[in-house]
Amino acid sequence: MRTTVGIIGAGPAGLLLARLLHGAGIDSVVLESRDRAYVERRQRAGILEQGTVDVLRAAGAGERMDREGLRHDGIELRFARRRHRVDFPALTGGRSVMVYAQTEVCKDLIALQLADGGPLLFETEALAVEGAGGDRPRVRFRHGGAGGSEDVLECDYVAGCDGFRGVARRAVPDGRTFERTYPFGWLGILADAAPSHDELVYARHDRGFALLSMRSPSVSRLYLQVPADTDAGDWSDEEIWDELERRFETDDDWTLRRGPITQKSVTPMRSHVHEPMRHGRLFLAGDAAHIVPPTGAKGLNLAVGDVVTLARALVHRVATGSEELLDAYSATCLRRVWQAERFSYDLTTLLHRAPDATPFDDRLQVARLDRIASSRAAETDLAEAYTGFPIG
Amino acid sequence: MRTTVGIIGAGPAGLLLARLLHGAGIDSVVLESRDRAYVERRQRAGILEQGTVDVLRAAGAGERMDREGLRHDGIELRFARRRHRVDFPALTGGRSVMVYAQTEVCKDLIALQLADGGPLLFETEALAVEGAGGDRPRVRFRHGGAGGSEDVLECDYVAGCDGFRGVARRAVPDGRTFERTYPFGWLGILADAAPSHDELVYARHDRGFALLSMRSPSVSRLYLQVPADTDAGDWSDEEIWDELERRFETDDDWTLRRGPITQKSVTPMRSHVHEPMRHGRLFLAGDAAHIVPPTGAKGLNLAVGDVVTLARALVHRVATGSEELLDAYSATCLRRVWQAERFSYDLTTLLHRAPDATPFDDRLQVARLDRIASSRAAETDLAEAYTGFPIG
Repeated sequence: MRTTVGIIGAGPAGLLLARLLHGAGIDSVVLESRDRAYVERRQRAGILEQGTVDVLRAAGAGERMDREGLRHDGIELRFARRRHRVDFPALTGGRSVMVYAQTEVCKDLIALQLADGGPLLFETEALAVEGAGGDRPRVRFRHGGAGGSEDVLECDYVAGCDGFRGVARRAVPDGRTFERTYPFGWLGILADAAPSHDELVYARHDRGFALLSMRSPSVSRLYLQVPADTDAGDWSDEEIWDELERRFETDDDWTLRRGPITQKSVTPMRSHVHEPMRHGRLFLAGDAAHIVPPTGAKGLNLAVGDVVTLARALVHRVATGSEELLDAYSATCLRRVWQAERFSYDLTTLLHRAPDATPFDDRLQVARLDRIASSRAAETDLAEAYTGFPIG
Repeated sequence: MRTTVGIIGAGPAGLLLARLLHGAGIDSVVLESRDRAYVERRQRAGILEQGTVDVLRAAGAGERMDREGLRHDGIELRFARRRHRVDFPALTGGRSVMVYAQTEVCKDLIALQLADGGPLLFETEALAVEGAGGDRPRVRFRHGGAGGSEDVLECDYVAGCDGFRGVARRAVPDGRTFERTYPFGWLGILADAAPSHDELVYARHDRGFALLSMRSPSVSRLYLQVPADTDAGDWSDEEIWDELERRFETDDDWTLRRGPITQKSVTPMRSHVHEPMRHGRLFLAGDAAHIVPPTGAKGLNLAVGDVVTLARALVHRVATGSEELLDAYSATCLRRVWQAERFSYDLTTLLHRAPDATPFDDRLQVARLDRIASSRAAETDLAEAYTGFPIG
């Protein structure tokens, strides 16, 4: 089997890359170890930056997003029983974000790729990337589970879009890893309840962080900061609602709407960057190269930035023969990655209570939130970062 | 002995308060445990915010400052061998800072007070503040050293301007203390060398923080981050210059001018706030209520904000009989204090290398500096804070 660009992983990075290449007339093959149903069910992020929305539209994948997604022009910060709204368009010259779940983005991209695109092979597990340092990289893969048949995909280039635990990164022989783990995680729920607020609410509370989000006008997505080793089963539904109510407390008569909880899970928090994001003809994109804590909603948006940069570079290579943009790929992406890592870390630190937090730390958090609420410059800094750093 | 406002401490807070009250026709007595020569020699901060400059001018203490002080319209951030200038007036609508040593401010205020003002008693040690909760507070003091005579100053109000280790704070019976110490300090030198740059240079380096400052066109003031327990005598002059040179390294041909080192000392780094800043008729101002690490140059400027707020409230009380502004004193000051604490902490964290810093932390610092250098909003946030938060 042979193609121009071998893509490992059918998450948003791999699927979007395949679309962008297809649009430019470059053929690719996507290998995905899971089956289609699994990929279309994975719950992940739900906030698309303005730039991500623009890219999906330009790639022809914006139709359902524009119909069903919820455009959000701001977020609310809640602290010391107060509420402060950050108005994105007013602060950033018109930018906003879209609430549309990653799993829906994947469904849209899969449907497009299957209808009109190169091969997208489910239940096809990449086993190794070989020869990335030379002219003819290969992806060894197995089709159809443990007893399945092995084969080789020969490529001009390989895109490693297979996430944090994928095989692609292992084929980068050297480089450096930067990481940080956090002593807390998020207990997240999906609930059949209309969202209690029409925009996301980020709450800083002495008992810990809480986030109010939504999937649709009738489905709420809510999160509680919990210790890192928490088992979601240890929390009864009522305990979850009671704790959310405490952390979202205000001085006005805001109330939290409750409803049946349909899903409950704990997400760990981690920051991770692998440098460089390239080895020879192998390029890492998305979670394969970097992880952010979910606080800034940057994971999916970083992946989109990576593959847009990679697609441009590959198109430039095919059109002109020049490897200039491919050579710049890692440094170009890493500038944006580190801004997102910084923002995600700072927003996490601003809102979460560390287990060893002192009264001084508590006052510091409230002073930072006060600053955002009272300085247009500080608020703009946040709004610019939240709605997204430029790609490329 | 009897006065309207008893002021403990002839640092900038106590001296300026005495001037402001004198200008409003309210009498005061200032008690200072040290002799005049000592007070006029103490080396402290050297950066006056725009608001501090305005206050000193309005108090009639601006003449020599305007003649000898150096107006600075920016600072330089140095990191990853790069240089970035922050232009204060362009970012803040015309605000700047003044380089004029605290010790010179004190000399000017002492001369004014002795020429035209209430009693300013040196070598007069306040021993205790008594009866602050009632109508007639008293300051017990001793004149002329350990064998001297004790006396009592009866007051309507007492201002505790006697610093971190003073007696005033001990007379506040309850309240809360917020603090943080840092695992590093500053090795500071005065050198007979023309400053190597015409504005302050804040350098972030893998070997630690360094700061280039100046006292005059012929005297440099320079600092090196060192471990907290460092003895200044452990560093030879040559070692200090060599280390400064390393930390200020750039990609261009900038050079560090050396000269004879005339003073050498280590400053510890600490954040500290006492709440509330008032008990009955006793009001704490300046270091008696709060300490900041020196990175943001906020200590003196906070003290000025406190005594301006206190003078206004006392004038209002005398003129109208209303205690409204005195009652608001602590909360009014603490809003500004916590913004300065936040800024000082964040600037310290941005630029210093913690002993346990990881490669991730290093990248985070450079990403934050990159953000300041590339986002007008982030840069404005810094420039606003550096040139000063509004008083009151």
